[in-house]
Amino acid sequence: MDRRKFFRAGTLATIGGALIHPLNGIAAPLTSTEEFKGKKAKNIIMMVSDGMSSGTLNLANLYSDRILGKTSNWLQLYLDNSVSRGLMDMASASSIVTDSSAASSSWGGGHRVKNGSINIGENGEEYMPIWQKFKKAGKKAGCVTTVPITHATPAGFTVSLKSRNDQAKIAEEYLRIGYDVLLGGGNQYFDASLRKDGADMYGKFAQKGYRIAKTKKELLQQKDNKPLLGVFYDDALPYAIDRKNDAVLSETIPTLAEMTAVAIEQMKKHPQGFVLQVESGKVDWAAHANDVAGLIHEQLQFDDAIKTAIEFAKQDKETLVIITTDHGNANPGLIYGKYANDHFDSLAHYSQTNEKLLNAFSSQTSEKEVIDYIKASIGITIDAVEAQKIQSYYSSIEKEENGLYNYKKLPYHTFAEIQKKYNSIGWISMDHSADYVEIAMYGPGQEMHKPFIKNTDLHYFMLQAAEVENKF
Amino acid sequence: MDRRKFFRAGTLATIGGALIHPLNGIAAPLTSTEEFKGKKAKNIIMMVSDGMSSGTLNLANLYSDRILGKTSNWLQLYLDNSVSRGLMDMASASSIVTDSSAASSSWGGGHRVKNGSINIGENGEEYMPIWQKFKKAGKKAGCVTTVPITHATPAGFTVSLKSRNDQAKIAEEYLRIGYDVLLGGGNQYFDASLRKDGADMYGKFAQKGYRIAKTKKELLQQKDNKPLLGVFYDDALPYAIDRKNDAVLSETIPTLAEMTAVAIEQMKKHPQGFVLQVESGKVDWAAHANDVAGLIHEQLQFDDAIKTAIEFAKQDKETLVIITTDHGNANPGLIYGKYANDHFDSLAHYSQTNEKLLNAFSSQTSEKEVIDYIKASIGITIDAVEAQKIQSYYSSIEKEENGLYNYKKLPYHTFAEIQKKYNSIGWISMDHSADYVEIAMYGPGQEMHKPFIKNTDLHYFMLQAAEVENKF
Repeated sequence: MDRRKFFRAGTLATIGGALIHPLNGIAAPLTSTEEFKGKKAKNIIMMVSDGMSSGTLNLANLYSDRILGKTSNWLQLYLDNSVSRGLMDMASASSIVTDSSAASSSWGGGHRVKNGSINIGENGEEYMPIWQKFKKAGKKAGCVTTVPITHATPAGFTVSLKSRNDQAKIAEEYLRIGYDVLLGGGNQYFDASLRKDGADMYGKFAQKGYRIAKTKKELLQQKDNKPLLGVFYDDALPYAIDRKNDAVLSETIPTLAEMTAVAIEQMKKHPQGFVLQVESGKVDWAAHANDVAGLIHEQLQFDDAIKTAIEFAKQDKETLVIITTDHGNANPGLIYGKYANDHFDSLAHYSQTNEKLLNAFSSQTSEKEVIDYIKASIGITIDAVEAQKIQSYYSSIEKEENGLYNYKKLPYHTFAEIQKKYNSIGWISMDHSADYVEIAMYGPGQEMHKPFIKNTDLHYFMLQAAEVENKF
Repeated sequence: MDRRKFFRAGTLATIGGALIHPLNGIAAPLTSTEEFKGKKAKNIIMMVSDGMSSGTLNLANLYSDRILGKTSNWLQLYLDNSVSRGLMDMASASSIVTDSSAASSSWGGGHRVKNGSINIGENGEEYMPIWQKFKKAGKKAGCVTTVPITHATPAGFTVSLKSRNDQAKIAEEYLRIGYDVLLGGGNQYFDASLRKDGADMYGKFAQKGYRIAKTKKELLQQKDNKPLLGVFYDDALPYAIDRKNDAVLSETIPTLAEMTAVAIEQMKKHPQGFVLQVESGKVDWAAHANDVAGLIHEQLQFDDAIKTAIEFAKQDKETLVIITTDHGNANPGLIYGKYANDHFDSLAHYSQTNEKLLNAFSSQTSEKEVIDYIKASIGITIDAVEAQKIQSYYSSIEKEENGLYNYKKLPYHTFAEIQKKYNSIGWISMDHSADYVEIAMYGPGQEMHKPFIKNTDLHYFMLQAAEVENKF
């Protein structure tokens, strides 16, 4: 008897189930890699969960599994054995630990640049960003994000600029180059009344033939073939979990998956194909704030957008979907202990971000009010010492907590340290980490994907998968 | 012109180098997966870096790259595209966050058991461990580790027992079952003068035909075909970095790679093949102590053993090498900042573990002596406040720091917090994390390896790869 065949045929479970475990399908043959071998990627969708440590992927999948009752879309792709996967080294020209602009530039321009700059080399060289290359090759190109559309990650694929901070300038560059879909936050960089130079960017985009959307309704109405600018908030869009629990925000702000679907719809009929970057930018912001509910729900928002992209790609069969992150951030993790499961499951009761929660307090808030509000909003009962610690922060003149995106100097770190006792979630810091990042691919090109790559390799990989010669 | 061919042929760099980046080989064809397809694994080497977070793999490879000048063997396997890789969910029956005994049992017995127990189910069911199954199938079976050979990870592959803590009993079980190679620490569980029951386990093993080795020299002299028991220290072996800087320890204690080589040599000629578990157990202990030098050098010691195993497997062509960890621990990471590179590179000056360093102090040590010793041993100059903090810990009656493997209540946490300012390494806690773990495979069977598996799947996977029917 051919024992090999005996074990591999998958029929054993029925003829002698007790003999061997059915293997949960781990012995299924490779599928997508073979399906797409040698085919060309007409379209590319590059999906970035900004600042996603390996622990973030784990926590979001645990939440999905245990609380929502289904495996996350990202991990389901692994279970289905339908993607290639690898690790990626994201170091920048100036540091082992990258920022988002140098990270996006490494993919976008194919060169490692210093942290803070966008596709500009050490001696001022301008590296042409990859979405420009694809536009020159005849494709449509766009970006979708939950942070300002002028933020570092979309910028690294689209423009060359000395500093990521000049977001008003980035808005102008978008107009000049003429990207086909731009969806996210950042109204302050487009609205004449909010821009320092008073320029009416909406007017200028409209003049160039763009359709402008400022609400979810306006976005979803998009039915023509015009280039599209959708800007739905002054700065970053509100966190997913806070949007969900606010009727007005739910009405006006689209989800990342909704924006992704509109972007695909707008560009998919173009004969030469399209390229689209999709970013869940506030995974990073939540990690900078050690804000676990913010983190998990932004990652799940990203996960919903994965579903949208993969469903399109499965039907289209000419689309390469790349799913990754630009760097770790804070390396969150669920910590061992007697109550690890209960602590994790208590996250089901978190109905708002720490940002929203901590914004609810002021120097006028009493300790009892602090305790009651925290109980009502995230389900934990902190003790008097902890309440005093939080309350006193608001009364003190010196607000010692800073950190990226902590504009109001809220006590993020203090609160996360308190939460740790109740949710067993730990953080190494409030900033990026050097960890190699997870990268997965679905579609034509995935068979060329090696298990450990440098960030800059991805630039050439995308050109190669799309068979666009790099002569610009 | 066939553009696809044009890009993929790899000849472009010579005919028009400026047009396209040479892609650093990311487009190389798959090799090992095809080479081994449909072949049977006569031998299995299962390699476990105990308690390795994703950040640990990153830090060790950064150290190898930047300070030793070569890519780690683990990551080189990825660069060579010669292994499959995936993530693995390590939850136990009692918790999302496993301990080492439940983790090893999930692989060893094919069932998730409660933390702390070894292949014993909730109602007392004994699950037969996989190395026993393989022995029954005619193979030789052994374990090699840097912690006591009776510790949780080897035990999970070899015995069934209610508690991992009964290491004296585990030594007896090894004798009863008759494993072929047992190498590591744990003299206290074999030596008649140290065992509570006074049993002379060495005598009993010798009586059963074992060759006994107690030093590196005795180990390397092993030239016959006798079963082999090698025990080189009372408890765990000393940390690699401390062994290297101690002439006596260097002389008497073998490295993990040396033990691995001897174990392979001893079993490789057996007609029915062999199975071998190789564990770097103190990666976990160092993570519990937030001890970065300990951590990196234990991971590098593991990495050297990978080389030994892979070199054998490449030549043998019938050996499946599985490389993984049983859970994350402390999720260490290098943190973003202006000095991230310099801080990381300063780790080159760490000549000893924090364990050794902190053992050098007592209540008699002055602050100046603390400063001088730290400067001399790891190259950083702490300030007076920090020195006072450390010094005062030794003078205080209450030693508040506990933690696993911190037998002497050394101020591990206090010191790691101080080091963070100088080395930018952060930790989420001093305990295990829930993170999905990295797993890679080389050899016959690797083509069946799916990108996301449950720990228990691996039990059946090994049987299947070796074509051993699961009827015991």
